[in-house]
Amino acid sequence: MNVTLIGVGLISGSFVLGLKKTYEGSLHVCGVDRNEQALQKAKALGIIHDSKSMKEAIAEADVIAIGIPVDALEQLLPEVLDACQEDALVIDFGSTKKAICDVVANHPKRANFVAAHPIAGTEYSGPEAAFASLFEQKVMIVCEEEKSGQKQMELFQELCQMLEMRLTLMNPAEHDLHLAFVSHLSHVTSFALSQAVMEKERSEQRIFDMAGSGFASTVRLAKSSPEMWSPIFLQNREHLLEGLSTYIDQLEQFKKLLEEKDADGMKAYMKEANRIRGIVDRISP
Amino acid sequence: MNVTLIGVGLISGSFVLGLKKTYEGSLHVCGVDRNEQALQKAKALGIIHDSKSMKEAIAEADVIAIGIPVDALEQLLPEVLDACQEDALVIDFGSTKKAICDVVANHPKRANFVAAHPIAGTEYSGPEAAFASLFEQKVMIVCEEEKSGQKQMELFQELCQMLEMRLTLMNPAEHDLHLAFVSHLSHVTSFALSQAVMEKERSEQRIFDMAGSGFASTVRLAKSSPEMWSPIFLQNREHLLEGLSTYIDQLEQFKKLLEEKDADGMKAYMKEANRIRGIVDRISP
Repeated sequence: MNVTLIGVGLISGSFVLGLKKTYEGSLHVCGVDRNEQALQKAKALGIIHDSKSMKEAIAEADVIAIGIPVDALEQLLPEVLDACQEDALVIDFGSTKKAICDVVANHPKRANFVAAHPIAGTEYSGPEAAFASLFEQKVMIVCEEEKSGQKQMELFQELCQMLEMRLTLMNPAEHDLHLAFVSHLSHVTSFALSQAVMEKERSEQRIFDMAGSGFASTVRLAKSSPEMWSPIFLQNREHLLEGLSTYIDQLEQFKKLLEEKDADGMKAYMKEANRIRGIVDRISP
Repeated sequence: MNVTLIGVGLISGSFVLGLKKTYEGSLHVCGVDRNEQALQKAKALGIIHDSKSMKEAIAEADVIAIGIPVDALEQLLPEVLDACQEDALVIDFGSTKKAICDVVANHPKRANFVAAHPIAGTEYSGPEAAFASLFEQKVMIVCEEEKSGQKQMELFQELCQMLEMRLTLMNPAEHDLHLAFVSHLSHVTSFALSQAVMEKERSEQRIFDMAGSGFASTVRLAKSSPEMWSPIFLQNREHLLEGLSTYIDQLEQFKKLLEEKDADGMKAYMKEANRIRGIVDRISP
């Protein structure tokens, strides 16, 4: 099977490394990336076998997996569908789905496309951050599966099985709304926490001396790539603005309790928040 | 050496388990706790040998380590100093230091006390959450060390060495200010994130399906104990309110950039926030 990766990074790289666990031998992987260094690294790491021009790499592929920022994805996806083989499977890994689905909604080759979002990732990026088990036991969301061809969906499901992923179907608007709250918002809360602490603590040594693993955990996502996240925030702007308002409102509620020295109110607030325990403890690390 | 734990939980339990790695044999540990179940568990887990009345347990101890919520600590500490042996070392583990130091500032036995705060912990509580390596390679902050007796400081430093901890000296006001930003604030951000997400997502299954490890990491501290954290927030109210204002202001700045679709502004904001990477990567997990 010929696989073409457009964008060789954490997600597309882990996709291939995960597949190779069961598919090695009959899998040929070609990489396309503007970043020549990323291609070299991906080759050295055994993620891709070779690299070609976009045109050649698309023409030869049975599976085309696109792992690039969602603004670039929105522009490129119609062209990829234009150029792909008749039965090819085209997958994206975008963290937003509405804009992506809309841009190819009436494309004559819409059936070749599966709009996918693996709920997996780390705060790192690039092929060197990829690893074979990233997708294991994680959820793969697919939107508008009824618009994907039967052959394409069957192959996609097979790939997900190889990756040991659990498939979940959802419409794009619903996907974007929920993701705004359970993913995009927590990236913003981390970026803002990092800024607030660095605004106060001019000395990095001081932060290092006094911050523990709790802070490290809460601020971890502030290490994420601006190039990747800015387009996600913009494509999911309306929902994320709603999420941010809800969140700021929650902070103001807590602030008021603290201002009023309302110990019982604060305890009740935290006890409510503790309910997240049952959910979080079931999320694979 | 006779050690008395007042409050047998995550921190005091880990303190004893850590010491036992090098001190086993000559260490006798007595526990005092209002919670009979916690005492039973601590015994079963090998943290304490026995339990006694507060009066007896204090009278016999060479070292008294107090691990209780900071409001209870503020009330109890003067009584513990009143009753302790002439050369005894009394340690607290409170996450706030100003109120604690103030309450014993003029106590005739102030020299017996070392005002300590280990930068170590997890989101769990109780003796069953304790483990021997919790303090390893972590920072131990001591406030007003000049008010502690020489004997007491020497013994304290010896204990820290056994626990493989790094000692840092700081005045209580400075401690509370910094901790508000690098610890107390991130607890509030997690509690509020949990509330915001649960307010929107009525279905827990939905959150579970779509939340990844990033969300889990950011919201982890929302599992923390309300009984422990409410008094910390109250004792460090002024600084935490400043932290919350700074943080909300940062969120509003980001929200404005998003409202204005300012991609470059958002990227610059995130790039700034990325600077936390160098600091966070040096924090022991």
